[in-house]
Amino acid sequence: MRMDSNAPIGVFDSGIGGLTVAREIMRNLPMEKIVYFGDTARLPYGSKSQETVLRYSRQIVRFLQNQGVKAIVVACNTASALALDTLEKEIDIPIIGVVKPGAKVAARETTGKKVGVIATEATIRSHLYRKLIQEIDPEISVEGKACPLFVPLVEEGWRKDPITEMVARRYLKELQDKEIDTLILGCTHYPLLRNMIGSIMGESVRLVNPAYETSLALKQLLQEKNLLNQGHREEEFPYRFYVSDAAEKFTSFANSILPYDVQMTRQINLEEY
Amino acid sequence: MRMDSNAPIGVFDSGIGGLTVAREIMRNLPMEKIVYFGDTARLPYGSKSQETVLRYSRQIVRFLQNQGVKAIVVACNTASALALDTLEKEIDIPIIGVVKPGAKVAARETTGKKVGVIATEATIRSHLYRKLIQEIDPEISVEGKACPLFVPLVEEGWRKDPITEMVARRYLKELQDKEIDTLILGCTHYPLLRNMIGSIMGESVRLVNPAYETSLALKQLLQEKNLLNQGHREEEFPYRFYVSDAAEKFTSFANSILPYDVQMTRQINLEEY
Repeated sequence: MRMDSNAPIGVFDSGIGGLTVAREIMRNLPMEKIVYFGDTARLPYGSKSQETVLRYSRQIVRFLQNQGVKAIVVACNTASALALDTLEKEIDIPIIGVVKPGAKVAARETTGKKVGVIATEATIRSHLYRKLIQEIDPEISVEGKACPLFVPLVEEGWRKDPITEMVARRYLKELQDKEIDTLILGCTHYPLLRNMIGSIMGESVRLVNPAYETSLALKQLLQEKNLLNQGHREEEFPYRFYVSDAAEKFTSFANSILPYDVQMTRQINLEEY
Repeated sequence: MRMDSNAPIGVFDSGIGGLTVAREIMRNLPMEKIVYFGDTARLPYGSKSQETVLRYSRQIVRFLQNQGVKAIVVACNTASALALDTLEKEIDIPIIGVVKPGAKVAARETTGKKVGVIATEATIRSHLYRKLIQEIDPEISVEGKACPLFVPLVEEGWRKDPITEMVARRYLKELQDKEIDTLILGCTHYPLLRNMIGSIMGESVRLVNPAYETSLALKQLLQEKNLLNQGHREEEFPYRFYVSDAAEKFTSFANSILPYDVQMTRQINLEEY
């Protein structure tokens, strides 16, 4: 099947965090249309098992394919870590996750071969960042630290708050003790705490934002496949948002972080897919 | 259909929180058998819509009925607030939630007619505690406060931690300013923070634990229906635990709060019910 370069890109996440990935795609691939799906009825994925995350991801991929997307971005570190390898084998359109691009850049940028990863429990437990980085350079040590309170703190709106800073200092302490020089923000919510994390870790530590790196990797992939869009700007609604629950709450969070006014989010029942 | 008084009681929650209710039933109804279901694959319910919580609750009720339970306890404030009224009409065995028993006791205990409720966002938004209390006495004012960080803080294991105390002080400040004299711990995780909340609110504020009140209401209900069990003690496994995801994690949390050693938790796929 020949894919239409004018078709939208499917982006999915367990909820709202993947909007930081959608935001980077909007910035770096401004001609592309996006169909975003947030699985808000079943979030978070970060504490769930591989089997469950894979089952949920398959349903979402079917939904996105029904929407006629030309490529899929798994904008969720947990789903990228636990489901991407399997999904890749099951579908015939390009699909990329956020983990590989982040791992690649971290491996390239580390000066002392000491990389840290902060992420959800499930991503850390998967050891995928470590595996991918050490495939590139086995001499790089990779230290992971799960930070389960960061997501609820961001969603509470406490992004610049002394309590969040105390939590961050405690979480980051062991990575500081291990003298990492590069830190991967391995969960899509974490770039929203970027300034705080940066000031705690200090200037000598390079922060890697997988959302940004993924948008660059997507651009390259679409170029290779001859799938880059030439002009969506004529269209009135280049960005479409779907969720499995509570569309209103999603829309208001989306408006707080996107450089663009989200008018409407539609709610769908994923169990039909 | 004549129900067998020897049948187990079904208890369900979005995850592990309902174990505080199961614990009270074990203490106050030691002869009863329990089938517990925790919807760990789809937790938390507290940020989800009524429609979604009702759909999930119906699946769980079908599962519990398949297990032959004689009565059902909705051990989740959110599901009690959003789904219980509908479920009651749909099934023919007794079903009770945690909200009504908590509301009743708060209305009885308040000396100054000022009640506070702390709970998840969805429970607070439903205004159900307020509605039920004011049905009993319209002069009682009811102030609600959502505390979305309490659940992840408890699950992080930070039950006695200065950070949790700072969060609690901030959340509880507005209820203190409103001079409530009675506070409902309206989420099943919150009794695990009981001491901290009690010392912040001070001795003059009475804390109501709906889990405890629910176990007493269940006892009365079973008595009325002639369904009290006379002797499970001969049985080797009076308590059975089922989850929709990550049984191992559940078992370890269960063992940290139950007065009883949980040997095994079984994982089932709820979408089949």
